Amino acid sequence: MTANTLVSSKLVCVALNDKSQLAALEGTFNEAPYKKPPTQPVLYYKPRNTWNVDGAEVEWAKDFDGNDAPAMAVGASLGVVIGQETCRVSQAEALEYVRGYTIVCDFSLPEESYFRPDIKGKCLDTSAPVGPEIVPADTIDNPDALTVTVFVNGERKNVFPLANMQRSVAELISKISWIMTLQPGEVIAVGFAGERVPVAKGDRVEATIEGVGTLTNTLGGA
Amino acid sequence: MTANTLVSSKLVCVALNDKSQLAALEGTFNEAPYKKPPTQPVLYYKPRNTWNVDGAEVEWAKDFDGNDAPAMAVGASLGVVIGQETCRVSQAEALEYVRGYTIVCDFSLPEESYFRPDIKGKCLDTSAPVGPEIVPADTIDNPDALTVTVFVNGERKNVFPLANMQRSVAELISKISWIMTLQPGEVIAVGFAGERVPVAKGDRVEATIEGVGTLTNTLGGA
Repeated sequence: MTANTLVSSKLVCVALNDKSQLAALEGTFNEAPYKKPPTQPVLYYKPRNTWNVDGAEVEWAKDFDGNDAPAMAVGASLGVVIGQETCRVSQAEALEYVRGYTIVCDFSLPEESYFRPDIKGKCLDTSAPVGPEIVPADTIDNPDALTVTVFVNGERKNVFPLANMQRSVAELISKISWIMTLQPGEVIAVGFAGERVPVAKGDRVEATIEGVGTLTNTLGGA
Repeated sequence: MTANTLVSSKLVCVALNDKSQLAALEGTFNEAPYKKPPTQPVLYYKPRNTWNVDGAEVEWAKDFDGNDAPAMAVGASLGVVIGQETCRVSQAEALEYVRGYTIVCDFSLPEESYFRPDIKGKCLDTSAPVGPEIVPADTIDNPDALTVTVFVNGERKNVFPLANMQRSVAELISKISWIMTLQPGEVIAVGFAGERVPVAKGDRVEATIEGVGTLTNTLGGA
């Protein structure tokens, strides 16, 4: 396992929290089998074998025959680090439970369909770098005003202002704390741009948030 | 958090591993959006806030308004406890990576549809008791020959012979080890009867496997 991960015990990610992605999917949501858009946050976990650190290599995915996967993609999110036990808190008090902020990258297989809960594509070893550090909560005035930018080999590929999130940081902490109790050191990746960035073997990926830092990782397999 | 849980770092559950459930769903699988039955194990996680122990109370679920959920259900599974790092092992060697066996109960909200990845219904605090102990792997000749029985208030409600699993214990360990690296102390709940058992507040639930033990828990909220 990767040493010195910043995550303790749980890394929860929020899917479908980009307003423009939700708007694009609106027609699909009303078809079978769902018949309506999601009414609560859509969550997934990045389990312990995925946790990784700033500066480390992210392994290239393999298929069931041991061959290299044909494609991978990356998204980046603000990471909210929980500071104390958080159980059924209101939106108004939610930010008081935050110890600090960091960056979470989510490397995965490209998603074929948002219908299929793609555990296999999301739980790749070393696919969730978190870092480079945890900046204290009181250094960030308004987390919803931050912008996440992803560079691949120095080229800007994606810009996601968190103002475009369907649910704010405080609303998510509150909602999730009603679904499951959160513990100190657990991390929530609050939202990714709907469009993931394709990556290739050997690519250098930097995810940057002003005031939080830059998380840099390189894809293996080259 | 519950102290002394038998689980270390990860509890992975296998869904849809009951042959009769798969047969019953066969027509549905061929409809949109999937168009075919799953080709790989369907997995979900019970995160750390769910981990619980033999003899402890399982909290009754609450909705987003803080009211008690109208219904809950339980399933029980053989729990396979990993003994050493397990990465891309063959089916033939998979059982060598097992430290021992235990029982996993999965309390949840009733599932409305197998399509929706029901994170909210599956991650309830204290909803995954594991125990009562880990029996050494060499005391079980053939894990696929075991039978899981669930009693509610002393009445037998469900009997699931693991011979009815679509995938064997060895096949699952192998397949999952290609999806993610497993670490010592991690637990795989290899399969539940397709039909979950409805439970009510205050019910006493016992899950029994001969040679492995009896896991007993009581529902809260009464």
